[in-house]
Amino acid sequence: MILEKIARLGSILACLCCFLGNANAQTEEDAFFMKDIYTTALEEQYGYNWLRDLTENVGARLSGSPAADEAVGFVKAHLEAAGFDTVFLQEVTDVPRWQRGTTETVRMIDAPIWGTRELSALSLGNSVGTPPGGLQAPVIEVHEIDHLDSLGRASLAGKIVFFNRPFDNSKISPSSAYGGAVDQRVYGPTRAAEYGAVAVVVRSMTGRRDDIPHTGVTQYLGDTDSIPGIAISTVAADHLAQALAETNELELFIEMDCENLSPVTSYNVIGDWFGTDTTAPYILLGAHLDSWDVGTGAHDDGAGCAHIMDAVHLLRQQEYQPTHPIRLVFFMNEENGLKGGRQYAEAAEKQGVKHLAAIESDSGGFLPLGFRCDGVPEALTPGFRQLNRLSDLFSPYRIDFSTGGSGADISPLKPQGPLLIGFRTSPQRYFDLHHTRADVFSAVHPRELELGSAAIASLVYLLDQYGAGK
Amino acid sequence: MILEKIARLGSILACLCCFLGNANAQTEEDAFFMKDIYTTALEEQYGYNWLRDLTENVGARLSGSPAADEAVGFVKAHLEAAGFDTVFLQEVTDVPRWQRGTTETVRMIDAPIWGTRELSALSLGNSVGTPPGGLQAPVIEVHEIDHLDSLGRASLAGKIVFFNRPFDNSKISPSSAYGGAVDQRVYGPTRAAEYGAVAVVVRSMTGRRDDIPHTGVTQYLGDTDSIPGIAISTVAADHLAQALAETNELELFIEMDCENLSPVTSYNVIGDWFGTDTTAPYILLGAHLDSWDVGTGAHDDGAGCAHIMDAVHLLRQQEYQPTHPIRLVFFMNEENGLKGGRQYAEAAEKQGVKHLAAIESDSGGFLPLGFRCDGVPEALTPGFRQLNRLSDLFSPYRIDFSTGGSGADISPLKPQGPLLIGFRTSPQRYFDLHHTRADVFSAVHPRELELGSAAIASLVYLLDQYGAGK
Repeated sequence: MILEKIARLGSILACLCCFLGNANAQTEEDAFFMKDIYTTALEEQYGYNWLRDLTENVGARLSGSPAADEAVGFVKAHLEAAGFDTVFLQEVTDVPRWQRGTTETVRMIDAPIWGTRELSALSLGNSVGTPPGGLQAPVIEVHEIDHLDSLGRASLAGKIVFFNRPFDNSKISPSSAYGGAVDQRVYGPTRAAEYGAVAVVVRSMTGRRDDIPHTGVTQYLGDTDSIPGIAISTVAADHLAQALAETNELELFIEMDCENLSPVTSYNVIGDWFGTDTTAPYILLGAHLDSWDVGTGAHDDGAGCAHIMDAVHLLRQQEYQPTHPIRLVFFMNEENGLKGGRQYAEAAEKQGVKHLAAIESDSGGFLPLGFRCDGVPEALTPGFRQLNRLSDLFSPYRIDFSTGGSGADISPLKPQGPLLIGFRTSPQRYFDLHHTRADVFSAVHPRELELGSAAIASLVYLLDQYGAGK
Repeated sequence: MILEKIARLGSILACLCCFLGNANAQTEEDAFFMKDIYTTALEEQYGYNWLRDLTENVGARLSGSPAADEAVGFVKAHLEAAGFDTVFLQEVTDVPRWQRGTTETVRMIDAPIWGTRELSALSLGNSVGTPPGGLQAPVIEVHEIDHLDSLGRASLAGKIVFFNRPFDNSKISPSSAYGGAVDQRVYGPTRAAEYGAVAVVVRSMTGRRDDIPHTGVTQYLGDTDSIPGIAISTVAADHLAQALAETNELELFIEMDCENLSPVTSYNVIGDWFGTDTTAPYILLGAHLDSWDVGTGAHDDGAGCAHIMDAVHLLRQQEYQPTHPIRLVFFMNEENGLKGGRQYAEAAEKQGVKHLAAIESDSGGFLPLGFRCDGVPEALTPGFRQLNRLSDLFSPYRIDFSTGGSGADISPLKPQGPLLIGFRTSPQRYFDLHHTRADVFSAVHPRELELGSAAIASLVYLLDQYGAGK
């Protein structure tokens, strides 16, 4: 291995002699370094094996749950074992503790075509339950939240509102389709409650037609708007819509015993790898440790956690010594509160912790596409220019750079001035699994995951070498 | 729909007014046209549904088998129903007819660690069977075919040769890893026979470690080199190698009753869609109709067949009338002979059929990456320049153009001067399934497949509009 490295070094030096300009020479060396990172990632599959460990030994890890505590301990122990210079837990207060319970039933009653039958359903996170014994009421189908205003209390009071606007599958990115539909899940219950609705049923957030229901957060904005919200599968939604096309007198029975318990204190888990320059700002790598309580959060966001663990592992395997300190942050409570991301930014501001850049991985473990940059203009303009100067190094790996949103957990850092960078993967398969029982380890492809780890490690290396353009 | 089209036309015209140069205006219109193609593909999923039909109703369709005949009839009927101007079968003579039989056993005998146990195995296509009752012989592990020369007859006569060089997983493209390992399967038996070996066992052609064996073609180059060849899963190969590390006296028992029957006459299925210019050369779209006899050839190459059916469907849905004639060719016998591709090119030359370009889809139904161009220099140089001029139109879809090999079935056309274009998809998952029982419809993702159809339809449109650079 050492001999190979010397031979490789020799060939690098030989190459260097061919270059007149230092800039080009530097790039050639960088290209070799990145190739080594990719080789190690694909051969070792450290991140993939780490993800197996997390998903199989901890499993689902909803904020506030005992499993989330277990995940915190798991990651802390792994960071310590991996030899990080400092490992610590950062308190995150007021973390919601929502509990699904054991009953979640949506039943069509004497429906045309279908008769009385249960629909595949999953309560929305943060939702209140129904009264014990459930509730039964007429159902009304709505496609746009604003349509509630024209329907008014006369049409909605005492009703169950069924939000059934599908994904726009014609969009090239299913993430855009999600963005165009998710208001129904997030604001449907709170808005329907304003007009006296008694519960909300939402078509699952996927463009795929199957019988898998998708959970996700709903938000109550007022004090008196807490009506139950539950998702049904897209197949169930189509069945319900077909029945409603035949009659306007259909009733649903809904029973859910989920509940919101008292908020708890939880933790972001942080590992620091010191750089040679003790005054340099941090390069932060973040992912969220919490997941939904169904499946095992393999893509969302186990894959992100594996990416950032792996990225540091890969740099260390190259015996790389960074100039900047590298910080891993495993954020708590991205899914239903973002408390970890917000409180991390608050603490950083208070303590005067400076960040050169923050990279977040929260788009799953699929085939890497690139990085999307954000930041205040004084950070984004030079940072994006800098990354574009380096982008040729990524072209063998089909990684590109764009601007736009970066990531939920790092976005609260924006006013503090770092370059924010969101890692992006192919979104084509993501919403088949997102927030479902199907988001498990076997749905992650080892090579696709590892190509992501290597891309992130490469970016950290280049940011450490060349800065973020300022 | 008509009103929408008028409204769209209005907005296109409004856009056109903003452009001074005709070139830009043209590009804008092309961009709208392509967007419509993509929208229709993703919404309708015509190709995906067609692929379900092919794989579920015909299934596996090995050259020379009754199922291949059935596939020929299936495609011909579909082309006729789709309203192609001419649909015909082109005779392909001398198509090999290989039959797997019912027995394929590889058994380790009294092996260290494992004892006597069967290994997951699949006979290689074109392989002869063993003598009835099987054969038993000592096994010798070899990693490089050339190593046979140094081992010589003294070490190899009477032995079973076990080719066990794994995929180089460090390569970014598993297709390159396949290219670097497949000589063992194709030439292993014929070369080992030269030194008196009695059979060959080959590690399956995949970088994945699992218990799924992969078939594929082997070739006998001489007259006296027909010894049986069989693939074992990568897990089985590792077990066998572990046992061989403990002893050099291990024997294997192999029994296979596959056989080569008399060659048959089969067909390429061809559908022509006439252009307005009756003197213009063809734009050919090709994929291979035959598959291996395990699984249902969903990715290999059902996806390619679906892509080309879908591409024409998409253009017709836009009410497009091409200038050039568009020809679909469903080639027979790509997998174990390439008779269809070769005889198509011979017939074209004899009959003076001219092709502007030939596009082949045979890289599966995964996420599209781009197109790879080939041809004689007089075709490739202007053709590739032309496609690069149009490449901005593909950037929203992350499709790029490169040069290199195009596709097996269209490559015999090369001397006749068309631009040859191979459609490429992400190879990361391909060799998990390639030539296995796992290559079935459920392994194809509808959106990934349809993005491929739309990319191909878009390319046909642009070639028809702007030619291939000559």
